[in-house]
Amino acid sequence: MTAFVPDFGKAGGLVPAIAQDADTGEVLMMAWMNAEAFEMTLKTGEAHYFSRSRGRLWHKGGTSGHTQHIRAVRLDCDSDTILLLVEQRGGAACHEGYRSCFYREMKDGEVSICSPKVFDPKEVYK
Amino acid sequence: MTAFVPDFGKAGGLVPAIAQDADTGEVLMMAWMNAEAFEMTLKTGEAHYFSRSRGRLWHKGGTSGHTQHIRAVRLDCDSDTILLLVEQRGGAACHEGYRSCFYREMKDGEVSICSPKVFDPKEVYK
Repeated sequence: MTAFVPDFGKAGGLVPAIAQDADTGEVLMMAWMNAEAFEMTLKTGEAHYFSRSRGRLWHKGGTSGHTQHIRAVRLDCDSDTILLLVEQRGGAACHEGYRSCFYREMKDGEVSICSPKVFDPKEVYK
Repeated sequence: MTAFVPDFGKAGGLVPAIAQDADTGEVLMMAWMNAEAFEMTLKTGEAHYFSRSRGRLWHKGGTSGHTQHIRAVRLDCDSDTILLLVEQRGGAACHEGYRSCFYREMKDGEVSICSPKVFDPKEVYK
């Protein structure tokens, strides 16, 4: 088996990282990782990403308390996408307060909300 | 609710699209979509991506027969990542023959194969 190391060389040092709830299988969010974020994630056991808008390492949940504890890490066949199986603290991954960032769903031509709102962002990000 | 349209303007016209097995919740793969791929996916009910290596529209399963039939489409809060809930024909998403492209897993410091090999690529891609 090849080394368990993402290929950060393809897209400017960043690879997509998907976070999935380890218990329910719900896909919670997608963010980006650079080599430092990947290393910090493995080292601390909590998801770290690279914030493209802020241009720096981002400890998910550092402000909200909604950290993601790593149960397992998967790599895809091309080693250019990471899948994190996580335990989502606080019950919500989305900064808008929804359990999943993927809370809007189109099915049979109808759009609906498919993931519950767990917190009020105004109360969390003061 | 805002329009159910991905924001293709952020990253050169491409957004990440995650395919998840609608029945089991297993994350199968991540690929890229441009506006045309998204439209074709909705229109045909089968996943279409944009192949960055080939520089053109890619009907997933067009060669292997392992098409992905769309049950639902989700958009994340920033409208810059797509999640497809699919029925994976042929039982495998990965061109290497594994059920999921994310077949390598690191857990408790050990790396193992976490998704079964369903077909032999040499038999499918002749």
